[in-house]
Amino acid sequence: MHDIPTPPPRGPQDAHPRLLAIDWGTTSLRGVLIGAHGRIVARRALPHGILHVAPDGFASAFEQHFGDWLEQAPALCLLSGMIGSRQGWQEAPYCPCPAGFDALCRNLAWLPAVGGVPIAIVPGMSVAPLGGVDTVAGVPDVMRGEEIQVFGALRLMQRRDGLLVLPGTHSKWVQVQDGVITRFKTFMTGELFALLTRHSILSRTTDVQASLNETAFVQGVQRGLRDEALGHLLFGVRALSLFDTLDPARSSSYLSGLLIGQELRDMRPAPGDTVALIGNDALALRYRLALAQLSCDTVVFGDEATWAGHQAVQTHLTETAA
Amino acid sequence: MHDIPTPPPRGPQDAHPRLLAIDWGTTSLRGVLIGAHGRIVARRALPHGILHVAPDGFASAFEQHFGDWLEQAPALCLLSGMIGSRQGWQEAPYCPCPAGFDALCRNLAWLPAVGGVPIAIVPGMSVAPLGGVDTVAGVPDVMRGEEIQVFGALRLMQRRDGLLVLPGTHSKWVQVQDGVITRFKTFMTGELFALLTRHSILSRTTDVQASLNETAFVQGVQRGLRDEALGHLLFGVRALSLFDTLDPARSSSYLSGLLIGQELRDMRPAPGDTVALIGNDALALRYRLALAQLSCDTVVFGDEATWAGHQAVQTHLTETAA
Repeated sequence: MHDIPTPPPRGPQDAHPRLLAIDWGTTSLRGVLIGAHGRIVARRALPHGILHVAPDGFASAFEQHFGDWLEQAPALCLLSGMIGSRQGWQEAPYCPCPAGFDALCRNLAWLPAVGGVPIAIVPGMSVAPLGGVDTVAGVPDVMRGEEIQVFGALRLMQRRDGLLVLPGTHSKWVQVQDGVITRFKTFMTGELFALLTRHSILSRTTDVQASLNETAFVQGVQRGLRDEALGHLLFGVRALSLFDTLDPARSSSYLSGLLIGQELRDMRPAPGDTVALIGNDALALRYRLALAQLSCDTVVFGDEATWAGHQAVQTHLTETAA
Repeated sequence: MHDIPTPPPRGPQDAHPRLLAIDWGTTSLRGVLIGAHGRIVARRALPHGILHVAPDGFASAFEQHFGDWLEQAPALCLLSGMIGSRQGWQEAPYCPCPAGFDALCRNLAWLPAVGGVPIAIVPGMSVAPLGGVDTVAGVPDVMRGEEIQVFGALRLMQRRDGLLVLPGTHSKWVQVQDGVITRFKTFMTGELFALLTRHSILSRTTDVQASLNETAFVQGVQRGLRDEALGHLLFGVRALSLFDTLDPARSSSYLSGLLIGQELRDMRPAPGDTVALIGNDALALRYRLALAQLSCDTVVFGDEATWAGHQAVQTHLTETAA
C-alpha cells in the first residue's frame, strides 16, 4: 500500500481561485484569474470584443476562452463592460446616478451558473434626466465598464471623493462625492480624433504616426480652452497648415490638444485638484500635460483599477451575505 | 438681288458678351456668360472641380469647357474659387482682412490672355494674425470664392454693412462694416456632419436620407447653443438613441441642429439682426430656422450673388480704368 503516492496536503497554492474577473468590451476581451490570496495568478487578453460574437454565441465564446479557468472552480465570475449591453450576453440595465458602490452591487445581472460557478454582469450607469429631445435639457449619458474602474481606483487610492477621467474613444469624466458617483460626462474625443485624421481634410496634413510633440500639444490645449466652436478650431488646423506654420508631425499633437482642451473647458477642474486618470500611459501623459495647464495634479491607474473594482464587488457580496 | 437674304442688322443680342464669369471650386465648376446688356445669356455647371484636373491641365480644361464661349470674344473672363489656390491654375495670394472691394480688385491675379480675352483670378481673403501656433492667439483663417459672393450679395442688397453666412462643407460667417470685410470665421460644419453620419458610431442610428424634421432640428440648435463641448453633445445623440428617444429619421436633423447651434453660439448674432444667407435653399432653410431662435431675420441669396460679384469687379475695373 505504501507504493501508492498520497496526494500532498491541500495548501493555499492549491485552493480554488477566488475570482474570475472579465472585462468584455466592444473590441477587446480581457480576463484575470485571482487566486485564493487575492493576487492575480493569470491574465488573458484577446481581440474578441462583443462585436466579434454572434448574438447567441456568448455562452460558447465564454467557455471557449475561459473554460480552463472555470475548471479550476473559482468562487465567482464577474463580467463588466459592453457584455452587459443590449448587444451583449445579457442586458444589465443601467444603474441611475447618483449611485454608490452598494447600488452597483445590488444591481448585478446574474446569469445561470456554469459548472457550478456563479456568474454576474456588472451594470453600467446612466445620468438622468431621460426626458428625451422633447425636453432639451433632458439628454442622458451612459457608461459601461468605466464604473467598475472608478470604484477600483477609489479603492486603490483609499478615497471616497474625486474627479476621475477615463480617456479613450469615448472619454468619461466622473465626479465622486462621499463614495457616490454624482455625475459623469462622455466626450467622443478619441472617435473624433480618429475620424478627423482618417477621413477629413485634416488627414492630408496630419501625420498620426508622429510621436507626441509636447509643445504643439499644449498649444492645442490652450486653444481648445477658448470659448470657440470646435468646428472653427478644427478649421484652424487646416489654415495653419496652409501657411506652413504647422507641419504634419506637429499637427497630430496640436489636434489632440484641441480636443482634450475642449474637454477641460467643459469640465473646468479647479486649480489644485488632483485628478485620477485611468488609462494607458500614452493617453495618461496627454491628460497629465493638459491638466497641468489648469494647475491640476494627476495620479494614473491602468488595468489594476478594473481588477480592484471586481475584487471590491466580490468583497461586498461576501460581507453583505455574511 | 432681292432673292439673296440680307443679314439682320447687328442688334444688342449680337454684341460681344460683356463677361465670362466662372466659379471653379474643389469639386464643381460653374460658369455663366453675361451679355452686352448685363444679363446672363448662358449657364453651365460641370462636375469638374480642380481636384479633377491635372496640375498642368488647367489651360486645356478651361478651353475644353469654355472654348465656345471664348470664341464669342467676351470683354473679360473672371474666375473665382479654389482655382486661385496653390492646387489651382495659378495661385492668387490671399488678400488680408480688413479689406474692401477695391483691395480685392487691385489684387486680381492676371493670366495670359486667351484668344485676346483678358483673364483674371479673384484672390481669396485671409484673417491675420499669422503668428502660427507659436503664438496661440495667432491662428489664421482663409476663404476663396466666398469673398466674391459676399460682395455680390451686398451689391444686390445695396448695403455696405452686415453679417453674412455661407453655409456648406466649411461654413463661413463674414462681418462687413462700411463695405470692408473686417473679419470672418470658418466652421467645418458640413464636413463634420458628413464624417459623423458616414463613419462614426452615430452613423448606425442616423438616417441621412430622412427629410428635415424641424422640431428635432430646433431642439438640436437649442442644445448646440449651450456652453458644452461638441464632443459631449455628439455623444448625447448616441445616448438619446440608446434610450429610444431619438429615432434615426429625427437624429439626422437633431445632429445638424447641434452643429449649426454651435456656430451661432460662437458668432452670437444680435437679436433683431438681419443675416444674409448665401447658399442653396435646403441649407438656407436650416440657418433661417436656427437664426430665428436668436430672433434674427434672414435674407437668402443663391448663385446670383456670385455672378453679381463678378459683374461688380468688371464694373470696378472699367470705372477705375476710365
